[in-house]
Amino acid sequence: MRTRMRPSSLANSSIFSPSPVTNELNKMSANSEGNEPTKQNSANYGDPDFACKFNSSENPESEFELVRERMHSAISMNKTEFVDSVLSDFSEGYTGLSTDDRRKLLVVLAKDYDLNRTRVRDLMKQYLGLQLPAGDKGEVEDDGFLATFYRTEKNLRHALQPTYEVLFERLNTHPGGLQFLSVLRADILSAIKEHNIPSLRAIDSYLKEKLITWLSPAALELHRITWDDPASLLEKIVAYEAVHPISSLIDLKRRLGVGRRCFGYLHPAIPGEPLIFIEVALLKNVAQTIQEVLWNDPPIPECDATCALFYSISSTHPGLAGINLGKFLIKRVIELVKQDMSQICTFATLSPIPGFMKWLLSKLALQSNLAEADTLDVSHSYNESAGSAFKENVLTAEEEREVLSKLGQSTLGKDGIEVIWNLLKSPNHEWSKSEEVLSVLKPILMRLCARYLLQEKREEKLLILLQTFTCRMGRWLKGYAGWLTDQRKHSHKVVVLW
Amino acid sequence: MRTRMRPSSLANSSIFSPSPVTNELNKMSANSEGNEPTKQNSANYGDPDFACKFNSSENPESEFELVRERMHSAISMNKTEFVDSVLSDFSEGYTGLSTDDRRKLLVVLAKDYDLNRTRVRDLMKQYLGLQLPAGDKGEVEDDGFLATFYRTEKNLRHALQPTYEVLFERLNTHPGGLQFLSVLRADILSAIKEHNIPSLRAIDSYLKEKLITWLSPAALELHRITWDDPASLLEKIVAYEAVHPISSLIDLKRRLGVGRRCFGYLHPAIPGEPLIFIEVALLKNVAQTIQEVLWNDPPIPECDATCALFYSISSTHPGLAGINLGKFLIKRVIELVKQDMSQICTFATLSPIPGFMKWLLSKLALQSNLAEADTLDVSHSYNESAGSAFKENVLTAEEEREVLSKLGQSTLGKDGIEVIWNLLKSPNHEWSKSEEVLSVLKPILMRLCARYLLQEKREEKLLILLQTFTCRMGRWLKGYAGWLTDQRKHSHKVVVLW
Repeated sequence: MRTRMRPSSLANSSIFSPSPVTNELNKMSANSEGNEPTKQNSANYGDPDFACKFNSSENPESEFELVRERMHSAISMNKTEFVDSVLSDFSEGYTGLSTDDRRKLLVVLAKDYDLNRTRVRDLMKQYLGLQLPAGDKGEVEDDGFLATFYRTEKNLRHALQPTYEVLFERLNTHPGGLQFLSVLRADILSAIKEHNIPSLRAIDSYLKEKLITWLSPAALELHRITWDDPASLLEKIVAYEAVHPISSLIDLKRRLGVGRRCFGYLHPAIPGEPLIFIEVALLKNVAQTIQEVLWNDPPIPECDATCALFYSISSTHPGLAGINLGKFLIKRVIELVKQDMSQICTFATLSPIPGFMKWLLSKLALQSNLAEADTLDVSHSYNESAGSAFKENVLTAEEEREVLSKLGQSTLGKDGIEVIWNLLKSPNHEWSKSEEVLSVLKPILMRLCARYLLQEKREEKLLILLQTFTCRMGRWLKGYAGWLTDQRKHSHKVVVLW
Repeated sequence: MRTRMRPSSLANSSIFSPSPVTNELNKMSANSEGNEPTKQNSANYGDPDFACKFNSSENPESEFELVRERMHSAISMNKTEFVDSVLSDFSEGYTGLSTDDRRKLLVVLAKDYDLNRTRVRDLMKQYLGLQLPAGDKGEVEDDGFLATFYRTEKNLRHALQPTYEVLFERLNTHPGGLQFLSVLRADILSAIKEHNIPSLRAIDSYLKEKLITWLSPAALELHRITWDDPASLLEKIVAYEAVHPISSLIDLKRRLGVGRRCFGYLHPAIPGEPLIFIEVALLKNVAQTIQEVLWNDPPIPECDATCALFYSISSTHPGLAGINLGKFLIKRVIELVKQDMSQICTFATLSPIPGFMKWLLSKLALQSNLAEADTLDVSHSYNESAGSAFKENVLTAEEEREVLSKLGQSTLGKDGIEVIWNLLKSPNHEWSKSEEVLSVLKPILMRLCARYLLQEKREEKLLILLQTFTCRMGRWLKGYAGWLTDQRKHSHKVVVLW
């Protein structure tokens, strides 16, 4: 994705020699409207001497300055046939920079190509001078009146776009530009880790919003990945599989073969490389462990499958972090599998139930006043939602007795709650390895998990982890699935939330 | 594209009966934040009685109200698995409405789901209370300081989005939604023709900007259309060809055969239907007339071609008017043709030279003071650009003599300028049918057109109509092409502007 170039090849890669293009661009940028950088640090862009420095790009500093100038040109030049070659030069130059120089350049971009705050303030004052329309005026007056509002609001929307918007927009329409934007965002994210300043956070947030728009699911193509796909694509599946690594070609072939599905979202501008992909196993019943899925050999005939198990989802672009394509991909894949195989009516995952453990710990902490100790952060975040149940007992009397009699002999705690708390917090999930502990905890955790799903998650978000299982404990929930389904009266709608 | 439905089928098309879903949705919308409609006219949405009216959708009025309510739900409900079915119900219901009802609904959408101006004003006051950072402060202070700016600016950007943004965004990610948005925009455009009010213009401008983002060339796939494509796609080429209608299957087959190319932009969300397509003829020399292109049978071998003539470009979606996909399509096609056939170095069109006739008429009008009469509008629009040449003679002394001696015998005008003016303004371009008139006007128009291209068009926009020919008069420019090329020193860059 990123190819490093030797510095000396950079200066020659342009169809122009550096010095004329620099002068040309400076002239052009002088004509452009609205794309001027904000004041600070930018006074030297128009200076011809500034351009002369770049005749040699032998040393890293001048290379940085060359790329910086290309960036400036890419933003400030008017739309002509030159923009494409300037964008190519900029992308090439950028990928050739060292990590430090890239970060420096990103800070320049974030700060010097921000929005024009003077213009924003002028427009605001103008807007605040307008009177809001009164409630019941006739339509005609209101209309003429509103025209001024609409116009000023539109101008404000545009004025509130930072100048670097131009670079993003141009890159997006430039061949290879979307991929490059994803590299830029990955770099911004890693720069923030090193140097968490507001201007970098602001450019990240802005670029993220743009990427969400451009990568809208409507623009993505759902592609079923099979053994017939090009090796160059399959190689990416192997490289980016983030949940259950693919160990060999045979492993990959099995994941694309009978009883398995693999789907990816492709974007026309990034061909041959899914942005995200998901792996599905077609099973007779919901699997208990990932081993069953990966080593189920020979697989059952597909016509016998009643369950589609989503056992892995991976994103290939670090620069697309936080852009929730997975949700849309899962929805599309469920539709597709349903269409293809009507006998499949269970859609499940092996992922942990989101939020359950956090909720449970906060519940336990609240009741036993363990909050003073190391649990403060946990209980705090759930204070509100758990508030109504403040005085309620997490355990039934019978469960309390059971826990104390069977597990309370050690020094684990003074009551059932504390015993369970300490067990769950034990390092490396030791509790899950003891048959004795499991036999007591299983029915309790099952009941509490069912309650969590049914009552504690917000109504709209509940839907529907009915047949979602965790590796460690979720599999016990299996028996509850039917009951949950009845309770929710949504047995025809199984939607998996990631 | 639009299928009308019988009203009675509408109520049953939902998987819910109207009344429960109405109640459900009203409950949900009460929970939603930020998606409330603006105050006017919306008080009745939450009223359960309002919902009861829709149990029957037998008469048009209640059907309108049903669709209006679906629209409200589609905007105001929280993200759940219901949104998709509500969006489908809304789209279906909308396409079943009469033209009048659609327009009524669009006005409701534009007015009642506008932005929240109170919130906007509050944020603005807050923003204006912040101090602009001074020039040379240290980075640390500035940074902490800027964080407040960034946050408020982001909030303002969001607050300045009208509430109907939600509907557009949701439709865009909904299967078939992009196509439906294009139908909505077409309806908005036709509503504006009937009832040109600011709120409709504002919603049009907003939707247009969204569509430009979603239909960015990066999201489009360039597809070469051939005789091997599905008939359902080719049928659309026949239906939408807007420049030179396709008369028969044989005509279509020829346009896709040897010595011809046809390329379209496809969007993944609108499969099997190019949004725009362009037809290209590969010729030995630039054609003089469209007849040569359409009836050039048998065509020359492709390896003998040196010219790619873009003879037709058509858009298939009226709702995408003003979204300039053509410019990008042409650029991509030029690249592709160059790659495929390096011997092709001339890229031309048969389109009239944009702006030339308007410029010429304004020039003539200015000089002969014809402006007082019916030319006021023309000369006005060019006052500024032509200002510098106010006192200059459009015709040379020799041209003036030639015109008067050969064409001035009639009552066409008192001087050369007036004669030419009257000829050019004659109905049905009568002037272009007389060999006598042509022999005089041709060299004059050629000279003036060359001058227009070289001197009058703004520097950045000039590029480069060098080998662009109009059907009526542009073909005479041919002789000038080489000279123009020399003048511009851009013989290696031929970019056709549409």
